[in-house]
Amino acid sequence: MTRPAVELVAIGDELLLGQTLDTNGAWMARRLADAGIGVARRATVGDDENAIADAVGAALDRTGTVICTGGLGPTQDDRTKDAVASLLGRPLAPDASVLAAIEERFRQRGLAMAARNRAQADVPAGATVLENRHGTAPGLWLADEEDRVVVLLPGVPHELRALFDATVLPRLQQRWPGPGRRIVSRLVRTTQIAESALAERLAHDLDGMAPLSVAFLPSFEGTDIRLTARDDMDDPAREALFRKAEVVIRERAPGHVYGTDDDTLARVVGEALVRHGARLAVAESCTGGLVATWLTDAPGASRFLVAGLVTYADEAKTALLGVAPAVLDAHGAVSEAVVRAMLAGARAAGAAEAGLAITGIAGPDGGTPEKPVGTVWIAAGLEERVEARLLRLGGGRDEIRRRSAQAALALLWRLLDTELS
Amino acid sequence: MTRPAVELVAIGDELLLGQTLDTNGAWMARRLADAGIGVARRATVGDDENAIADAVGAALDRTGTVICTGGLGPTQDDRTKDAVASLLGRPLAPDASVLAAIEERFRQRGLAMAARNRAQADVPAGATVLENRHGTAPGLWLADEEDRVVVLLPGVPHELRALFDATVLPRLQQRWPGPGRRIVSRLVRTTQIAESALAERLAHDLDGMAPLSVAFLPSFEGTDIRLTARDDMDDPAREALFRKAEVVIRERAPGHVYGTDDDTLARVVGEALVRHGARLAVAESCTGGLVATWLTDAPGASRFLVAGLVTYADEAKTALLGVAPAVLDAHGAVSEAVVRAMLAGARAAGAAEAGLAITGIAGPDGGTPEKPVGTVWIAAGLEERVEARLLRLGGGRDEIRRRSAQAALALLWRLLDTELS
Repeated sequence: MTRPAVELVAIGDELLLGQTLDTNGAWMARRLADAGIGVARRATVGDDENAIADAVGAALDRTGTVICTGGLGPTQDDRTKDAVASLLGRPLAPDASVLAAIEERFRQRGLAMAARNRAQADVPAGATVLENRHGTAPGLWLADEEDRVVVLLPGVPHELRALFDATVLPRLQQRWPGPGRRIVSRLVRTTQIAESALAERLAHDLDGMAPLSVAFLPSFEGTDIRLTARDDMDDPAREALFRKAEVVIRERAPGHVYGTDDDTLARVVGEALVRHGARLAVAESCTGGLVATWLTDAPGASRFLVAGLVTYADEAKTALLGVAPAVLDAHGAVSEAVVRAMLAGARAAGAAEAGLAITGIAGPDGGTPEKPVGTVWIAAGLEERVEARLLRLGGGRDEIRRRSAQAALALLWRLLDTELS
Repeated sequence: MTRPAVELVAIGDELLLGQTLDTNGAWMARRLADAGIGVARRATVGDDENAIADAVGAALDRTGTVICTGGLGPTQDDRTKDAVASLLGRPLAPDASVLAAIEERFRQRGLAMAARNRAQADVPAGATVLENRHGTAPGLWLADEEDRVVVLLPGVPHELRALFDATVLPRLQQRWPGPGRRIVSRLVRTTQIAESALAERLAHDLDGMAPLSVAFLPSFEGTDIRLTARDDMDDPAREALFRKAEVVIRERAPGHVYGTDDDTLARVVGEALVRHGARLAVAESCTGGLVATWLTDAPGASRFLVAGLVTYADEAKTALLGVAPAVLDAHGAVSEAVVRAMLAGARAAGAAEAGLAITGIAGPDGGTPEKPVGTVWIAAGLEERVEARLLRLGGGRDEIRRRSAQAALALLWRLLDTELS
């Protein structure tokens, strides 16, 4: 039996114009990997019948199972069904139950159905209709004489996800029965160290991590190290290798490894606060609420987050945080004195044992020769201990905001870590 | 002359595993479209020499110009250079200046250079080195005898972006001299109306918009309608068609169209506040700072945002916003009474003419039969006028938070719009 694998074909001019990120492909790839099904390749084509047929045909020839997303809507841009029907030589004909469902949607809204919506009920001969409870375009499952399969799914993420979990994944799992060989990798997540520095510190260790393969995945929040195991390894052997590699990485980059896999630094900080019994107050200027948003991305933040204060304007720093106007005048809003006063004000407002504060110039305007864009002061406090740091960051506004938020969380994390150890 | 077009090949197992979104491809596609260069197709392959060579070869045969991203690092996963050198029959040899630069980076850090880093200095014969000021892997530009081009770029976004703007785009523009024919599309952005409802309302108008093509692009924040013009249209003709179509869309979906192209609802609200001379205070519970983050995504928020208060815990609603404990006890934190009290508290704290408040159950826990996950109260105020709304949303935590934040901004936007009209 061949190793279970599919190809993904994403369809839409918006993907070629860069107006939309293909989040569907990444989402399906994770679901498939968890089910032991590999993604052999991905292609992205525009709303063009020839390009769609060519990409789907090549993927079918290579891998035999293809999942297409997008291009099933009612507009003239939506060409996927025509392209695939013609590729497989299956004439389109209206499906009575799909047509009835579309007519019902229009009736409920008191609207007349347009002719082009009627085409949404056309189905290639021999296709299985996958009911879409969240929209008008159903999914379609087409198998040819050689048992090669093309699946068509709508591009709207919540419709796609519901259809994929309810109908596509179970059918794929039936296609490759028996114990799935999971594609297993582990992310070791680091922050506040550059990818190049990390790669250099680990340069002499990588060969010793074989047969794991190692890749560095940098982002504004830090660099993830991905360890991937071979298919044929059993669980305990793989786990032992992962742990050994993680120990090496922690030794080479002490204080930079905050977790693995889905851990985020915000969640790690939240859990450390809960263990410590400390409640947190956050004061943000240039990051505008990003730290608070990250801390509340996962449920359960009410156990440790007492208050977040976004004090973008100077008068808000005074009114909400009690930063003295004289301090603002003497040092400027981006200064160690102000970030420390913001921290103290936030902790007082929330009666909190722990605090974070950020003030900086995220740009593109507002820089000066002494304080160029990217100048950011961060501060963290835990009980009587307070640390402040000056960051000088490059990049655009989004990069500066994200790096500042992560650096502030890292500062608090280290206070908590020392405290806990 | 053929129409200027390239293909993009993204390389990396992390893309096939769904661990990373290919933001590089979308970013380059936008830059290229702005320069009048189309993206004919995109492919994604893993760290596999055969798959890389196959995808690059097919793209070269189809389109003649290929930009590859990723797989240039120092680890055994990085196969791009070998694959392309072998595809084009160009032996690899060390480049003295690249090697010197890598050695210098190690020296500065006081580290010994590992053997595998030496391979990063290997360059295919005849390649032009594109200097990378932000990392160890340089970009490479390879032209074959038929003047077909393969460009290799590192996958790290900030390295890629700097290299692309400084070296790749100018070289591509030289490749297709003369007046560029821009690929022009316009997004008309809507919110608080479902894609299906929008498509149904516009079903009878789409044919009348020809020769523009029309596509619907839904997201949690709303549905964008993309209008795309043919290449051969001149600027005034195209602009006239765009305006005509936009007028039709505004007529069919009154109160839902908030802008075009790069406009965000947060920015439109900010600009309306500035025009109105009103300052805004925001109180957020389940959205945890997301509204404040969005309002400060663009520079200039200090002109209108006086304060953001993230009051995730009940006691913070009392301490920072003055919500009476008796009101919280009688109605629960997710109630009209509490959202109105939060709004009043935020406006009072910031002495603000305008306010926004959000309280809800984003899940996955915390739902009850009467108030299931997705129950969210939002409120907006502008001077003496206050509006509150109950939302009942589906989806996961992220979807509920984003939809709530956008709905709250939309509520304020309509107050401002009436006020201004």
